[in-house]
Amino acid sequence: MDELMSKAQAARAAARKLVLASTAEKNAALEAMADALLAHKDAILAANGEDMTAAENGGMAPAMQDRLRLTQQRLEAMARDVRAVAALPDPVGEVFDQTVRPNGLRISKRRVPLGVIGIVYEARPNVTSDVAALCLKAGNAAILRGGKEALQSNMAIVAAINDGLRAGHLPVDAVQLIISTDREIVGRMLKLRGLIDVIIPRGGAGLIRFVAENATIPVIETGAGVCHTYVDKAADPQMAARIVYNAKVRRPTICNAMDTLLIHSHIADTALPLIANELGKAGVELRCDPVALSIVPTAKPATDDDWGKEFLALIAAVKVVNSLDEALEHIARYGSGHSEAIVTNDESAARRFLNEVDAAAVYWNASTQFTDGGEFGLGAEIGISTQKLHARGPMALRELTTYKWVIEGTGQVRPA
Amino acid sequence: MDELMSKAQAARAAARKLVLASTAEKNAALEAMADALLAHKDAILAANGEDMTAAENGGMAPAMQDRLRLTQQRLEAMARDVRAVAALPDPVGEVFDQTVRPNGLRISKRRVPLGVIGIVYEARPNVTSDVAALCLKAGNAAILRGGKEALQSNMAIVAAINDGLRAGHLPVDAVQLIISTDREIVGRMLKLRGLIDVIIPRGGAGLIRFVAENATIPVIETGAGVCHTYVDKAADPQMAARIVYNAKVRRPTICNAMDTLLIHSHIADTALPLIANELGKAGVELRCDPVALSIVPTAKPATDDDWGKEFLALIAAVKVVNSLDEALEHIARYGSGHSEAIVTNDESAARRFLNEVDAAAVYWNASTQFTDGGEFGLGAEIGISTQKLHARGPMALRELTTYKWVIEGTGQVRPA
Repeated sequence: MDELMSKAQAARAAARKLVLASTAEKNAALEAMADALLAHKDAILAANGEDMTAAENGGMAPAMQDRLRLTQQRLEAMARDVRAVAALPDPVGEVFDQTVRPNGLRISKRRVPLGVIGIVYEARPNVTSDVAALCLKAGNAAILRGGKEALQSNMAIVAAINDGLRAGHLPVDAVQLIISTDREIVGRMLKLRGLIDVIIPRGGAGLIRFVAENATIPVIETGAGVCHTYVDKAADPQMAARIVYNAKVRRPTICNAMDTLLIHSHIADTALPLIANELGKAGVELRCDPVALSIVPTAKPATDDDWGKEFLALIAAVKVVNSLDEALEHIARYGSGHSEAIVTNDESAARRFLNEVDAAAVYWNASTQFTDGGEFGLGAEIGISTQKLHARGPMALRELTTYKWVIEGTGQVRPA
Repeated sequence: MDELMSKAQAARAAARKLVLASTAEKNAALEAMADALLAHKDAILAANGEDMTAAENGGMAPAMQDRLRLTQQRLEAMARDVRAVAALPDPVGEVFDQTVRPNGLRISKRRVPLGVIGIVYEARPNVTSDVAALCLKAGNAAILRGGKEALQSNMAIVAAINDGLRAGHLPVDAVQLIISTDREIVGRMLKLRGLIDVIIPRGGAGLIRFVAENATIPVIETGAGVCHTYVDKAADPQMAARIVYNAKVRRPTICNAMDTLLIHSHIADTALPLIANELGKAGVELRCDPVALSIVPTAKPATDDDWGKEFLALIAAVKVVNSLDEALEHIARYGSGHSEAIVTNDESAARRFLNEVDAAAVYWNASTQFTDGGEFGLGAEIGISTQKLHARGPMALRELTTYKWVIEGTGQVRPA
C-alpha cells in the first residue's frame, strides 16, 4: 500500500478512537505535544536550518524565507499556541435541539468530531502545530500535506507531535504528515471518499482553486479576499482616513486587507485628498478611476483589471461612486464575499450596507483587518472560510465538528 | 447567452432581492404559489398526461410511472405542502453568538439565505414545488434541473409557481427551471462558481456520485443509505422483530430502510427464527451468513457483495456477530453513515452504540425509517444529508441558510 492510503487508513482508525477521548485526555495530550515541541527544539531548528539553506540556495524571496524561518522564540510561540488550544472550551459532546416527539421518541443533536480532516498548506511551518492542535482538540485526526520547501521542518515538528500524542496516551496516528512531495499525491488525497471527511486548503489562490476543482470530498475554501471599504457621503473624513489606512497598510499581504476604496462623490473632494495623503506616507500606490484621478492627479489611472483584484501589496484601487447603490453594485460584482466595510455616520445607510452586502464579514465603521478568529473571540483560527456552506468567515474549534442525531425509543415503529 | 448562463444570472439577481424580503412577503408569495398550482390544474395535469404517455410508450417500470403520475388529489397535496412551508418559522434574520469585544466592537452572527441553490433531481414532479417552496421560504433563489421524463409536468408546475411569485410581488426569476435535456448542461451547472452557491442532488446513487465527482461548487450529498439494525444479546425478541420488520418492510425503497440485520449469537437461536418468520410474511428475501443460514435454512446464502449493499427492495442481508464490538466493526466498515439502530435493553450497550457509530442518525430501540424531516420535527425536508459538512441527516429551512458576521464599530482599527 502506498504512503497516502496507509496513512489515511491509519488516520481513520485513529479518528474512531479520538471520538471517545475525554476533554481531559485531549488536553493532556496537547500539553504533552507542547512539551515535546520544546524537548525536540534542537532537532526542529536543525531541520529548519536545512530547509532554510535550500531556500537560500534556491533563491526564495526574502519575505517567503521569513515565513519559513523558525527560531527558538518562534518555536516557543508554537508551543504556547498549542497550550492555548488546550485551554479553549471543548465543543464536542454539546447536546442541542432536544425534543420529545408526540410518539415518545427522544431526539437530540449531539456535537461530534468531523472525523479525518485533510489540510493542504504552504510554507509556514507553524501551521503544522497549529492545525494539528485544533484538529485534535475537536476530536479529529489530521492528514497534513505541507509545502515541500518546509518538509524537513514539518517532519521534525510532526515527530515531536507524535511523541506528545504517545506521552498523552492518544493514538499516534491522529496526526499524519505526507512525506512524498509528488504533487500527484494531493490530487489523489482530494478524492479519498470514505477516508477523509473534509479537506481544508490553506494558501494562495492557485492552491485553493486546484483543491476546489479537483476534490470529490467536501472542501472548506479559505483565503481569497477582494475587500472593499466604502466611504459614504455621511462619513467622518478623519475616521475614514484612519480606517482605510489600517485596512490597507497594517498588513497588506493578508486576505482581509482592503483592495478597493469606494468613495461617495459628495465627500470625495474633501476626504480623498486626506486619505490619499495618509496612504502616500506608507508608500501605497493608488490606481484611480478618472474622477478619483482628477482629485489625486499624482496617482496612476486604474485599468479594468484593477477592479476585483486581490493585490496583497501596498496597492489600492480607488473609485468614486455617486450613491450607496452604486457602491453596493460594485461590491456585488467584484467582491469575493470575504470582508466589506462602510464608513458612515448615517445609520440607515449603514443598515442597508450590512443587510445587502453578501460577505462573510460586513463592517460598519471599523477596519476589515479585524476578520480573524482571535479578534472575533474564537480563541484561535484554522482559516477563514470564503464559502457559505458549513462555516463562514473565521473558523475555529466548533467549525471542526459536525453533529449526529441521537434517537432514543422504547420500541417505536413508523406507521405506514 | 445560453439558457443556463442567462437563467443563473437571473437567479443571482433575484437572490439579491430575496435577501430583503420580509417573512410576510415570502409567506404571501407562497400562498399565491399554492393558489396558482390549483388555478393551473388543467394545464399541469395535461402536461403530466404527455409525460405519462411518453413513459408508457417508452416502457417505464410501473413503480416509476407511479412516481411520475399526477392526479387532482396529488396536485392538491402539493399545494397543501406549499402552504405548510408558509406556516413554518422563518430562519432568516436570527441573530446569535452576540458579543462585545474589549475594544468595543459589537460582533454577532446573522442568519441569511445561502443565495442561489441548484437542485438536480429525478422523476417525481412534486419535488419541483416542494423544493421551490423551501428554497423561497429560506430566502433563496432556486435553479431546478429535473428529469427529462417529467419535463412537461415540471414546466407546467414552474409556470404556475412563476405566476404565484408575480402575484406575490417577489421576483419571478427566483424559481428557474432548466428546459434543455442535454446532460452536458448538468456538468456545466456544477461548475458555476460565483453564480450558484450550493448544489443539492436528489436521486439515485449514480446521480449523486456524478454530482460529487464533477462539482466545483459546494455540494450537499443526499440519499444513499446502507442501514444496519443490530439486535443485541439483551434485546427483547418481540420488540426486535417489530422494529426490524418496520425498518425493512414499511417502505423498502427508501434510503433509511434496513439493509443488513446484525444479530448477537447469544440471542440468534431464539430471536432470528421469530424475525425471519415475520419478514417472511412480507416476502422478504434473506441473504444469510453461514451461522444465520444454519438457523434459517430456508434462506439464501449471502455473498460478499451483500454486505454494504443498499438493496432498495424486499431483501435483507443477515449476519450473526459474537459481540457488540463485532457489530460496531461491521457498521464502521460497511455503513454509509446514514441511519443505524441497536435494539437492546442494556443501557450501557446502547450508550456505546450511540457514541461510537458514526452516522447521521443513531437509534436505540426504534426503527430507522423515522429518519425524516417531518418525523424529526423540522416540518419539512429538502433531503437527507449523508455528509458531515454543513448539515447531517434531515435538512429543512435552517439548513438552507448560512450566516454572516456583522461587526459594528465606532472607528476601531486593528493594532499592529
